[in-house]
Amino acid sequence: MRLVVVGGVAAGMSAASRARRADAGLEIVVLEKGERISYAACGLPYLIEGRVKSVDGLVVHGPEFFERQRDIRVKTGAEVVAVRHPSREVVLKSGERVRYDKLIWAAGARPAVRHGGGKVFSLHTDTDGERLQQALASQAPRTAAVVGGGYIGLEMATALRARGLKVELFNSRTDLLNREDPWLTALLKEKLEQCGVAVHSNTAVDDAPSLPFDLVLVATGLKANVEALAEAGAEVGRSGALRVTDRQETSLGGVWAAGDCCEARHVVTGSDVWIPLGTTANKTGRVAGANAAGLRERFEGIVGTSIVRAAGLSIALTGLSAAQARREGLRPISAEITAKNRPDYFMPRRLWIQLVADSMTGRLLGGAVVGEEDASGRINVLAAALHARMKVSAVEQLDLAYAPPYANVTDPLLTAARQLAKLLD
Amino acid sequence: MRLVVVGGVAAGMSAASRARRADAGLEIVVLEKGERISYAACGLPYLIEGRVKSVDGLVVHGPEFFERQRDIRVKTGAEVVAVRHPSREVVLKSGERVRYDKLIWAAGARPAVRHGGGKVFSLHTDTDGERLQQALASQAPRTAAVVGGGYIGLEMATALRARGLKVELFNSRTDLLNREDPWLTALLKEKLEQCGVAVHSNTAVDDAPSLPFDLVLVATGLKANVEALAEAGAEVGRSGALRVTDRQETSLGGVWAAGDCCEARHVVTGSDVWIPLGTTANKTGRVAGANAAGLRERFEGIVGTSIVRAAGLSIALTGLSAAQARREGLRPISAEITAKNRPDYFMPRRLWIQLVADSMTGRLLGGAVVGEEDASGRINVLAAALHARMKVSAVEQLDLAYAPPYANVTDPLLTAARQLAKLLD
Repeated sequence: MRLVVVGGVAAGMSAASRARRADAGLEIVVLEKGERISYAACGLPYLIEGRVKSVDGLVVHGPEFFERQRDIRVKTGAEVVAVRHPSREVVLKSGERVRYDKLIWAAGARPAVRHGGGKVFSLHTDTDGERLQQALASQAPRTAAVVGGGYIGLEMATALRARGLKVELFNSRTDLLNREDPWLTALLKEKLEQCGVAVHSNTAVDDAPSLPFDLVLVATGLKANVEALAEAGAEVGRSGALRVTDRQETSLGGVWAAGDCCEARHVVTGSDVWIPLGTTANKTGRVAGANAAGLRERFEGIVGTSIVRAAGLSIALTGLSAAQARREGLRPISAEITAKNRPDYFMPRRLWIQLVADSMTGRLLGGAVVGEEDASGRINVLAAALHARMKVSAVEQLDLAYAPPYANVTDPLLTAARQLAKLLD
Repeated sequence: MRLVVVGGVAAGMSAASRARRADAGLEIVVLEKGERISYAACGLPYLIEGRVKSVDGLVVHGPEFFERQRDIRVKTGAEVVAVRHPSREVVLKSGERVRYDKLIWAAGARPAVRHGGGKVFSLHTDTDGERLQQALASQAPRTAAVVGGGYIGLEMATALRARGLKVELFNSRTDLLNREDPWLTALLKEKLEQCGVAVHSNTAVDDAPSLPFDLVLVATGLKANVEALAEAGAEVGRSGALRVTDRQETSLGGVWAAGDCCEARHVVTGSDVWIPLGTTANKTGRVAGANAAGLRERFEGIVGTSIVRAAGLSIALTGLSAAQARREGLRPISAEITAKNRPDYFMPRRLWIQLVADSMTGRLLGGAVVGEEDASGRINVLAAALHARMKVSAVEQLDLAYAPPYANVTDPLLTAARQLAKLLD
């Protein structure tokens, strides 16, 4: 019995490893179109910032590790261009055919607009990172345009500033981080500009190479790599990513999908959404691998948690903003607070918290935590609350840890929940 | 209509403030036996460490603030020695009587063994803190014994080391932090000894003044201040603290209680327990104040979350240890992991995580997070999971935030949950 996994980064290697633990006898083959597997793509901005010296510093395990330790055969440079599901085989770009009994599609995503030449760069793969790193070293650019106001845009604006470039950010949308949140956008814009990054909102860039900057980084969103599988008949959702069940099954029998190429159930709305992130890729990869190997596991879904470091801030989001909730037909209400994260004698830092609730039920719908220090702990509490479908009145009473080095006796999260609870009364 | 609040620290001032917001017409009188109200007692170890210069630096608001801003009358130096409930009056030590219509008992707790002389110190009140601070300044002690292995013992051993004293810690129990956890005790003991604090376990100290140290700090637990109310007929639980309903009602009509003097429902076990902490004092104070003012609010209970900084570690606990779960008649199973908290290129620090689950149901029962950096974010996620009665299989799939500055793509919490889930399979 042969399991073929298409894609050797986060979801693919998680799937292959989980399948191996579930079934020691399965033959497992991973096909990766690039030259590296299992690298931490989320670390690429830190390669550009200079904190990571080479892409190899982002590689978790090489093919040898998987072959020797986990008996997983890894083929790099193996791009799948077609799936012949009736005959259970995939066709590689080289023309080679690889037979499968079971297939896990973990082909990831790619930049919606691909720029590969001259002074214009993407930052999605290991080779993108290397190309940009080399350009910074050899061409010593002095000005950079970053096109896109999502998390990669913000990380890269920050990284290029850290390298000493003069940076301007062009965002085709009104809002930053696709959050549809004027409060958050205003806060981030102010902080970016304090760091010397000029932000141009509502400014679409149609012709990136013509921008008068030494270097142009385009990070205007992704597109799921579904074509070969879709042509074989797999159902694709409105997002353009693969539809899957909560067992990561595609609409093709014996074919599972995981990671950036597929949708996931949003626990807050109950809808299938496409939010490609490494964390979800790992989890869905594991579920796909377990099920392909004959177990029955379920992916419970996501709540849309993310964090990004930019402009000296930690910006953490989960669930829905008020505008996003309105688009789901809900009647949201929100509260924002600014607080210190600790008592005055422990060098407190500033923290901005926004909570969104459904005014009809009092249920928490989402939150944002922005901090001059780490905001991940507090956003993760909100994420857990969203998974548990908690009401704001329950969030307000959470038994959170307190000692002066870490928090105030009433944690700012609880203060924000109290503010929101007052509005719900 | 007059509401009298006995106790002017965390629970009492929260209760009075909440009652005022609920009912602008209520007459509110706070009786505090000490000279200061509304100070952050949890900050006292940092007064001793030298980070806070005077107790006044721990005062949140003075009586003037409450009188002027909230129309709350505050009487300090007013110790209640008797409650005459049939005639609705409390009797002060001075002999003065204060009439009430409604009463909130927020009299706190006191050290189980009171040491007030010579080289022996407690650290519970503002005046305890000042006495010890003065002794350190004027007598320049060189050696200190800390008696007690709870959180104050650990904080004070650390604070006195930071002041340059040679410190030994005497613990009458086998375990540190009352957790009944050999894993945690071994880890903390090792770290304390690395910091130069000798730890003597199973070593009861009967005669503190005779210990051959320049200074002896006794922190051997607390006793709830219930006597006057208990003599008036209020029911006391087996813990020695007041029994209350989830509306913070005592067994006396028109008398509520909050804070360190009363028990609280433990969400994990469903039992009433006594875990006096400032966080709970604030929350129960608010609920008592709301209900005394005619609203109907409920306290949902605690999960036993705490954090302490000691020996260069953040030690955070929530829920039950395995031994504690066994004493509740459960069949716990636990897993421990050691992990780095971030990728190698972001200067990772070490993190120890322990999770405990019920082997019969898979439900999470408790956890410990010990870190060389802040552990509060991750313990709070576990606290939220305990409030939500999550299974380990749900914890394993939490959508937690990831970016390289903050975590690994699989957060160590999820890794620990996976380990435990494997044991549960």
